[in-house]
Amino acid sequence: MNNLIVGRKPVLEALKAGTLIERIVLLQGVRGSIIEEITAAADRQKIAVNEASRQEFRELASDVTTQGIVAVVARRQAATVEEILARASSDSRPGFLLVLDEIEDPHNLGALIRTAECAGAHGVILPKHHSAPVNAATIKASAGATEHLPVAEVTNLSTMLDDLKEAHYWVVGLDMEGEKEFTQVDYTTPIALVVGNEGKGIRRLVREHCDFIARIPLFGKVQSLNASVAGALVMFEVVRQRRAADSPKPAGA
Amino acid sequence: MNNLIVGRKPVLEALKAGTLIERIVLLQGVRGSIIEEITAAADRQKIAVNEASRQEFRELASDVTTQGIVAVVARRQAATVEEILARASSDSRPGFLLVLDEIEDPHNLGALIRTAECAGAHGVILPKHHSAPVNAATIKASAGATEHLPVAEVTNLSTMLDDLKEAHYWVVGLDMEGEKEFTQVDYTTPIALVVGNEGKGIRRLVREHCDFIARIPLFGKVQSLNASVAGALVMFEVVRQRRAADSPKPAGA
Repeated sequence: MNNLIVGRKPVLEALKAGTLIERIVLLQGVRGSIIEEITAAADRQKIAVNEASRQEFRELASDVTTQGIVAVVARRQAATVEEILARASSDSRPGFLLVLDEIEDPHNLGALIRTAECAGAHGVILPKHHSAPVNAATIKASAGATEHLPVAEVTNLSTMLDDLKEAHYWVVGLDMEGEKEFTQVDYTTPIALVVGNEGKGIRRLVREHCDFIARIPLFGKVQSLNASVAGALVMFEVVRQRRAADSPKPAGA
Repeated sequence: MNNLIVGRKPVLEALKAGTLIERIVLLQGVRGSIIEEITAAADRQKIAVNEASRQEFRELASDVTTQGIVAVVARRQAATVEEILARASSDSRPGFLLVLDEIEDPHNLGALIRTAECAGAHGVILPKHHSAPVNAATIKASAGATEHLPVAEVTNLSTMLDDLKEAHYWVVGLDMEGEKEFTQVDYTTPIALVVGNEGKGIRRLVREHCDFIARIPLFGKVQSLNASVAGALVMFEVVRQRRAADSPKPAGA
């Protein structure tokens, strides 16, 4: 099966990123300035843009909100952890990886990949099983970030975390029962941040492979944040600390 | 029409919050430890728990993922801005309000209300029109936070922001084109944080009623964060600054 990218922004992002798109399919009658921008970009890249009837369109993209536009791409080539680590070490900044332990909801998965890309992470690592797949809904929720950020799938998350430690990464798990507040952890060294399942959190065995468990302090009656929100807060704390460490110190400090 | 609370955690939170629940309906055959906790809590509060066939259940809750459990509550009584301001001024901490300008997606609305509750905000204010409603999907995405945090609806957001300024609130809008980075704004005074629509951002007229526009710096190719993620980052920056201001200064500072 081919992979689909659905929705206006994701298709436009994919075109900008130079994704190998086989063709773009528009629902008959769909109009608008982003559509014009897409058809112009597709034209420049010699990518065919076809119009389809409602029925043909449904057969192609049945179960997601498509905004009447779909790009057919060659099957997604998953990245490897080695590729992500190589990408990180060729960067002047310390490595920054997001590890997702059995995130179930494609919207959360997409939002986490989107935030990781926006925060400047080097890649995302998922378990092969029991994770939401990087499918059309995920790609759409990622707002095209899956086109820019490598996502690797591994069979055994715990073994992989040990490999990361060998590569001098600190592994920080996120859990509401964590021993340290997330702003008390030092993220200026290479960091792999582990976010767990929406309901169950990080699995016990995976948790045992973390160097620290960090928690986000909460001040209301609801006992947990949405997984993609929790992950975002820590990712941007990584950003904040690294920028603070890079910026000149105030006089006298 | 009555309001429904759907899903295990939201129903449990509603029970804990003492929400006036008329009855709880379980899909026949639904089991599990949270269900047992719910039926025990309902029993203590003399709330009837009925089992329903798949067809009866569908008639009650058709279009949302319910996890086989629904609580029927009396129609939601929206809060007023005055009530929220009174709640804030009876608190020792400075006021902290979340204003949402035409958020469209109930999942985003629910996630934003959930994060606001977790961050200790005093209330959420929405426009009456062109906003996702506080419906069953929103309540579910809020993980029950709508039961703890007052949500007010107003006809005119701009006029309301002027009222907040009269009440000595600083109004901070969030936009990717903002003049200041969000961590550069002082949130230790009473704050109303304005988050805009997922695609269009804050409306021009509403933006003109903000004291500052803050931006979140991004480091990737994707040009924006999910609205609920962006709102969460600023809400927890408010928390971080206020806690830093409250904690004793290091010696010599």
